[in-house]
Amino acid sequence: MSVMPQRGFSAAEYQARFNNAQRSMSEQQLSAILLTTEHDIHYFTGFHTQFWQSPTRPWFVVLPASGNGPIAVIPEIGVNCMRSGWVEDIRHWSSPHATDDGVSLLVDTLKEVAGSNIDRIGVNLGRETHIRMPMADLTQLKLRLGITTEFVDATALIRQLRMIKSEAEIQKIRYVSQAVSRVFDNLFGFVDVGMRDTDIFRAFKIACLQGGVDDVAYLVGAADQGGYDDIISPPSGAVLREQDVLILDTGCVFDGYYCDFDRNFGFGAVSDAARNAYKVVWEATEAGLQAARPGNTCADLFIAMDSVMSQAGALGESVGRFGHGLGLQLTEPPSHTAWDTTELEVGMVLTLEPGMQFEPGKMMVHEENIVITETGAELLTTRAQPTLPVKD
Amino acid sequence: MSVMPQRGFSAAEYQARFNNAQRSMSEQQLSAILLTTEHDIHYFTGFHTQFWQSPTRPWFVVLPASGNGPIAVIPEIGVNCMRSGWVEDIRHWSSPHATDDGVSLLVDTLKEVAGSNIDRIGVNLGRETHIRMPMADLTQLKLRLGITTEFVDATALIRQLRMIKSEAEIQKIRYVSQAVSRVFDNLFGFVDVGMRDTDIFRAFKIACLQGGVDDVAYLVGAADQGGYDDIISPPSGAVLREQDVLILDTGCVFDGYYCDFDRNFGFGAVSDAARNAYKVVWEATEAGLQAARPGNTCADLFIAMDSVMSQAGALGESVGRFGHGLGLQLTEPPSHTAWDTTELEVGMVLTLEPGMQFEPGKMMVHEENIVITETGAELLTTRAQPTLPVKD
Repeated sequence: MSVMPQRGFSAAEYQARFNNAQRSMSEQQLSAILLTTEHDIHYFTGFHTQFWQSPTRPWFVVLPASGNGPIAVIPEIGVNCMRSGWVEDIRHWSSPHATDDGVSLLVDTLKEVAGSNIDRIGVNLGRETHIRMPMADLTQLKLRLGITTEFVDATALIRQLRMIKSEAEIQKIRYVSQAVSRVFDNLFGFVDVGMRDTDIFRAFKIACLQGGVDDVAYLVGAADQGGYDDIISPPSGAVLREQDVLILDTGCVFDGYYCDFDRNFGFGAVSDAARNAYKVVWEATEAGLQAARPGNTCADLFIAMDSVMSQAGALGESVGRFGHGLGLQLTEPPSHTAWDTTELEVGMVLTLEPGMQFEPGKMMVHEENIVITETGAELLTTRAQPTLPVKD
Repeated sequence: MSVMPQRGFSAAEYQARFNNAQRSMSEQQLSAILLTTEHDIHYFTGFHTQFWQSPTRPWFVVLPASGNGPIAVIPEIGVNCMRSGWVEDIRHWSSPHATDDGVSLLVDTLKEVAGSNIDRIGVNLGRETHIRMPMADLTQLKLRLGITTEFVDATALIRQLRMIKSEAEIQKIRYVSQAVSRVFDNLFGFVDVGMRDTDIFRAFKIACLQGGVDDVAYLVGAADQGGYDDIISPPSGAVLREQDVLILDTGCVFDGYYCDFDRNFGFGAVSDAARNAYKVVWEATEAGLQAARPGNTCADLFIAMDSVMSQAGALGESVGRFGHGLGLQLTEPPSHTAWDTTELEVGMVLTLEPGMQFEPGKMMVHEENIVITETGAELLTTRAQPTLPVKD
């Protein structure tokens, strides 16, 4: 087991995140940013809890354009947990509430931090975001703030800050990627023909926990004769057979940070088409690794991987992209598509995930996790073998 | 290990859910209901995947007021998984998309199912809900549907359907509640003074997986001298000591369905105050069990539990309620508060979760899972011991 990184982050790191946000708010003439979702709030405050799985209570954090730090406007149940993070200004109400689940407290807070006659408040309105509060409460909030308050899209601003990872963030992702790489490397030690997929999933989760991850938050997969046709389903109880290709794709977590990668495994006399498809997506990943350097774009990564698969006769793909950002969430911006021209920068943590249909109804998807450094891609996962691992 | 229930549901069960929705839509003169969130979509379609953890792609399901079944409007990556559920009408686009992430396809679908000049489309606007799509896309959607389309709050409608569980749903929750009860009953077999809380959590998760749950999706807890002051935090690395009271609160999952309950454990010479507080919340739960019968309300449950704790000198509580609904989500409506007058009905699965501060900075929270039957409460969990279990 590699050395487990320290949990949490230094106050200096949170201060830097907040300072960067304030700098961007100043450039965009925002009075404040209003955050409502788990990972934005975690990023700026250190508030880390699985309690987000309960949809009952809304949670708000306000980043003021001027002022010393974030302001948490939260249900009372979260006060002690929030206090253990970086935020000093914590305002709370008893939630769930019969008539006013934090709206008044949030209105007061936003009015307090307002800086001008016309206030521009940044919220996430764009791609890959949503607002986590009842729509009726959002309508109330807007009404009570009045027509002098404008909600402005802050998606690009927040996305830019979160896309560039610090060394401490990268360490956490590297740790969990390495832990899961070791489990995959040992998979033939605990998976065999005749097992139900439900038992394979269970065994894999236990191995990951024993291997040092905090949670196996995401595990999907499939197995079928010479390839699979779906990569997002839970296990069905199906029994693994000779000639199956098994894919497991997992997002394991350490201290809130994800890895996200897959591995393919063959059992017995797997078809040559599947073995060849594996080589193609492995080579496509190699092309992605070569292209993954500062100054290139996500579109460049897409083209590099796509050209390898197209030349090999790929019949198309259904995932919609060949990888993405990674961090506090299983998937984060950017996306490796033909149209995403995000420039790669040092500190971006990305997946490379080329996939293709190689026969009707047969897919092959491969995935590695990397960080962009000044000299190019550094692998966080242990590189998969160049040929399909087969258990005979 | 108790017998594992069959995964999934019969077509008849999905048909009944859809028929019930159509009946309510007719009563409320809705043309359709638009669903955007994981658990509403799972409930009406059987679409079950952890892929929801990726925020990249929006997912839509339309329940038409007339018509044979739900219409899925989804990213291509989900088509095969959706096909394995109950939905036949599946429309898809390649997502993520540069300019139009499903909005046009959704507009066309909603216009197709519209039944009158003025269309009323039900969406979740109320308590415990949010809309999971980019706000900018929702604005586009409204604009393109035009002023003849009104978005009407469907929170109460959907909530009422989902609150009443079928026997097949109850079986899944009973199974996972029983599996986790056995792990708690054996906790002193694998937890001892001197262990770090991170290792306690890890051991508990492995025990639950070995005991037959699919996932330990939610595990929070705390331990401190004679009581704890926070129940939603992750482990910090702290070492368990003599005189600590440990609480673990877990939502484990089987086939998408949650249990949600906690247990308290003492180590060594735990304070009398903590032992007494345990008895009080256990007695409060007894009072809740007595009051949990059809015709009573959530407020009645609240009062029954609150009066036991008030008489015992409780200093207040910070959770905001004494239990809630349970099912596809860790917490669902209703809430056991003084103001929630939801009437208890046969088939409701609920938690009873009385909690109190018994000394400044010291809480005691207890929780059991029940189903409402014609004769009263049936425990799904194995009832906790009436006195604090202590390992000496």
